[in-house]
Amino acid sequence: MTVLEWDPYDRNCPSRQVLDRVGDRWTVLVVGALAAGPMRFSELAERVDGVSQKMLTQTLRNLERDGLVTRTMYAQIPPRVEYELTDSGTTLQLPMKALEDWTKEHMRGIMAARYEYDLHKAELPKP
Amino acid sequence: MTVLEWDPYDRNCPSRQVLDRVGDRWTVLVVGALAAGPMRFSELAERVDGVSQKMLTQTLRNLERDGLVTRTMYAQIPPRVEYELTDSGTTLQLPMKALEDWTKEHMRGIMAARYEYDLHKAELPKP
Repeated sequence: MTVLEWDPYDRNCPSRQVLDRVGDRWTVLVVGALAAGPMRFSELAERVDGVSQKMLTQTLRNLERDGLVTRTMYAQIPPRVEYELTDSGTTLQLPMKALEDWTKEHMRGIMAARYEYDLHKAELPKP
Repeated sequence: MTVLEWDPYDRNCPSRQVLDRVGDRWTVLVVGALAAGPMRFSELAERVDGVSQKMLTQTLRNLERDGLVTRTMYAQIPPRVEYELTDSGTTLQLPMKALEDWTKEHMRGIMAARYEYDLHKAELPKP
């Protein structure tokens, strides 16, 4: 059996593009929000503060295309559309939660490091 | 004791910006590369296929500012500069590795899902 080896360090490997996707801010927040269960577009838009309608649409469509989210339309008036994590999407919650937890845990240290850096290295050219 | 609650779902919380940073493609790949030990700029540039000099410089500076990477210059001719993960940066490896592993593990399924999606939903407006 041939085992494909995905390598995001190779610029031509499709895994690099997927890595981009899963690390994307809106993807992380949407997947995290859907951890609570199926949600409507408007609920997601409210939960993910500051996301534009366009970005949320695009994020959900990409997640759907990647098989991580399903979009179900209920025939009622007005029609109700719900988004839900697939089994595969659910497995993404663990690494994303780890990233979110790490971020929260290290925020203080990062803020302090930035303060020090900006204080002492103000003479360096800005990135 | 007051416990600060960081909330990346709030657009004004600095944790959202840090979440962006740690999910960034180049950050993930640079932190992963530095897991092997200290590296010079040129070694990193070679390892992280396709990164521009500008993006690598910016990524390293951001990591340094956040206290996740140290930059050490050795006084020799020509001067040698090495980048190394700090203790805090080292702790970032675990969630990032989890993300990288998830990506590799789910690539096949994602590629298949995309194929299906594009086949059946070609009539939908493109994101």
